[in-house]
Amino acid sequence: MARALELARRGQYSTHPNPAVGCVIVKDGEVVGEGFHPKAGEPHAEVFALRQAGYKAIGATAYVTLEPCSHYGRTPPCAEALINLGVSRVVAAMVDPNPQVAGRGMRMLQEAGIKAQSGLMEAESRAINPGFIKRMESGRPLIRIKLAASIDGGTALANGQSQWITGPEARADVQRLRLESGAVITGADSVLMDNPSMNVRPSQLPTHIELPDNWHHPLRVVVDGQGRLSPDLKLFQIEQPILLASHQPSRHNWPAHVDCWQGPKLSDKLDLNAIVAELAERQVNSVLVESGARLAGAFIAAGLWDELIVYQAPKMMGDSSRGLVHLPEFSTMSEVPEFKFKDVRRVGQDLRLTLVRAES
Amino acid sequence: MARALELARRGQYSTHPNPAVGCVIVKDGEVVGEGFHPKAGEPHAEVFALRQAGYKAIGATAYVTLEPCSHYGRTPPCAEALINLGVSRVVAAMVDPNPQVAGRGMRMLQEAGIKAQSGLMEAESRAINPGFIKRMESGRPLIRIKLAASIDGGTALANGQSQWITGPEARADVQRLRLESGAVITGADSVLMDNPSMNVRPSQLPTHIELPDNWHHPLRVVVDGQGRLSPDLKLFQIEQPILLASHQPSRHNWPAHVDCWQGPKLSDKLDLNAIVAELAERQVNSVLVESGARLAGAFIAAGLWDELIVYQAPKMMGDSSRGLVHLPEFSTMSEVPEFKFKDVRRVGQDLRLTLVRAES
Repeated sequence: MARALELARRGQYSTHPNPAVGCVIVKDGEVVGEGFHPKAGEPHAEVFALRQAGYKAIGATAYVTLEPCSHYGRTPPCAEALINLGVSRVVAAMVDPNPQVAGRGMRMLQEAGIKAQSGLMEAESRAINPGFIKRMESGRPLIRIKLAASIDGGTALANGQSQWITGPEARADVQRLRLESGAVITGADSVLMDNPSMNVRPSQLPTHIELPDNWHHPLRVVVDGQGRLSPDLKLFQIEQPILLASHQPSRHNWPAHVDCWQGPKLSDKLDLNAIVAELAERQVNSVLVESGARLAGAFIAAGLWDELIVYQAPKMMGDSSRGLVHLPEFSTMSEVPEFKFKDVRRVGQDLRLTLVRAES
Repeated sequence: MARALELARRGQYSTHPNPAVGCVIVKDGEVVGEGFHPKAGEPHAEVFALRQAGYKAIGATAYVTLEPCSHYGRTPPCAEALINLGVSRVVAAMVDPNPQVAGRGMRMLQEAGIKAQSGLMEAESRAINPGFIKRMESGRPLIRIKLAASIDGGTALANGQSQWITGPEARADVQRLRLESGAVITGADSVLMDNPSMNVRPSQLPTHIELPDNWHHPLRVVVDGQGRLSPDLKLFQIEQPILLASHQPSRHNWPAHVDCWQGPKLSDKLDLNAIVAELAERQVNSVLVESGARLAGAFIAAGLWDELIVYQAPKMMGDSSRGLVHLPEFSTMSEVPEFKFKDVRRVGQDLRLTLVRAES
C-alpha cells in the first residue's frame, strides 16, 4: 500500500477534478502490476496495473489507495475490470467518498466472491486528496486562506508597501499551495494594490516538487463586486482561465479566457456562498484564498474556510501598519474567533502556521 | 560536569545577583563532594563541595560550572580554597565573565601547580546564567521583552478588553520568566489599563518548577514619566520593592517599599538608557519588559533588548484591535526591523516565539 500511495502522489498535480489514486497488484509476494491515474478522462490506476499484470492478475491481490469505482463515468467501472481479470483479493486504503460509489465498489467485488477490505493506511490516503474528499463529503471545496504578515500582524506599511514581507522559501511554498488548488481566489483590492499574476510559476516552485507535463493550472477567480477592474491588468494578460465574479454586469469587453460570472448579493456584497457553490458545481476540489484583509475576513466571518495558512516573517511593522484581517469590531474577548494550531513549521527564515477550527 | 550543572540549576532562582554555580569533586572515579551556591553572601559551590570531601579532596578533580573566583568578595577566593585543600585538577565549564576574575582564578590554580582547564560543556553552563554573563560582558542586564497577541497581532479589543488572550500555560510560563528576572519593567499605560500586581505568584508557576524557600522576588520597575500613578493601585499594595521611575518628582506620598527614582529626559520622555544603567548599577542581571505597545516599542527602537518573547494565541482579533508594538511609521519595507526566530514552541494552546537580532 505504501508503494500504491507513492504512485498515487505522482498524479496529484494533474488528476483534477478526479482524486489521485495508485494501485499495485501483488501475486505470490511479487509485484506484477503498478499504475496511477494520470489525468481525468484517462484510465484509472487499476486499469494501468491490470494491463501490466496481464494473466498474472488471476488470483492476485490488488492494493488500491481508493475504493475501485462502481459506476460508468468517462471510463467503465474498475470493480468490474478487477472481477473480469480474476483478482482474488482487493485491499483499499479508503472507501470512495463520492456518493456515486460510497461502498458500492467494495460490495460489487464481494458479491463476485472477491475478498475486499478497506482501511489500510487510510489517513495517508486521505492526505493525498483532501480537497476531493471535502467536496464529496460536504458538497463544497476545501477552502484554505493564505495570509502573510509580520509577527505583529502587519501586511503592508501605512503607505501600502508590502513587497516583500516573507522570504523566497515562503513565497515558493505559496506557489506549491496554488499548484495544489483547483482555484485561487483574490479580490479587486489586492489586484489594484499589487497587480499580481495569480498563476503558478514552475520556476518558483520549491525544488523538491516534480512537476508533471500535464499539470493543472488552477482557475483564477477574481471577486470584483463593484466592477473596478479593467482588462489591462497583468493577471488578465495571461491566457489561462479566469472567473471574474461580480453582482453586476461588467462594463468592459473581456478576452475569451475571462469568464464573467454574475452572482447574487448578500448585505450589499457579492454572496461568497454563491461563488463557492459555483466552484463546487465546476468540480473544483480545493480553493486557495489569497486576498487582502477585507475578503479574507469575509470568508472567515462567513465560516467559508477549512484552514488558515499564515506565513509569519520575523519582522515588526508597528501599529501603523495595515492589519491582517478585517473583522467586525468585537466588544468582548469571548466573541473573538478561536482556532487551533494544526501545524507549525519553519519555511526559510519565516514560520508557517496552519490553523483549523478550535473544535476540530 | 553534567551533575555539577544539575546542582547549579538548584540555585538559579535564589543566587541573584550572583551566578548559579555547581561543583562536584571526584576522587578515583567516585564523587566525594558536591555543592552549589544557594544565595549571595553564603558560601560558593566549591566551599560546600570541599567541606563534604574533607581530606578526600587531596589529589581529587573538581568539576565546577564556572571558573573559581580569585578575589575577596563577601567570601574568600575559591581558587585559594581548592589549592589549600590539595585538589590536583580543576575542570571549569567556562571562564568567569566577571572582569574581576576573567581567567585570574584559572591562573592562580595553574601557578599553584594544579592542572586547570576550562570549556567543558560551556554552552550548557552559559545557558544557566544568561543575565549574569550579559551584564558582565556588556555592562547592562539582559533585556527580554515579553509580548502576547493574537495571530493578527492584536493585544486588546478596540474598547481595551484584553483578558485573556493567551491560555493558562502561557500565563504560567510568564510567571517563570518573572521568576528568572532580576527586575520586571512595566509602564504607566499598562498599570492604568490592567491594574496588575507584577509579582511572582508561586501557585501559578509551571508545575515542573521547584521553587526554593529563599527565591528572589524580582524588583518591580514602573516607568511613569508623567507621574500618573497613585499609591492605591494594586501593585503598590504588595510590600515587595518597587522602583518608580520618572523624570519629575512625584506628588504623592509613597510607602517605604516604593523607591522613587528620578532620571533624565530624552526627547521629552524618561531616558530608558538611564533606567537600564541604574538597574545595572543595582546589579540586576536580567530584565523582563512587560508593557504596552508604547513602552515595548520604545525599548525596541532604542536597541535596548536581547530577546523578544511573543506568546501567540490561535485567535484573530481583527484590524480594529490594538497593535502589539508602537513603532515609528516606516516609508519603505527596508526600514522595518528584522529579527530571527531563535526558538518556536507550543505552550498549551498557544505558541511561544523567541526572536533575537537578525545578525546574531
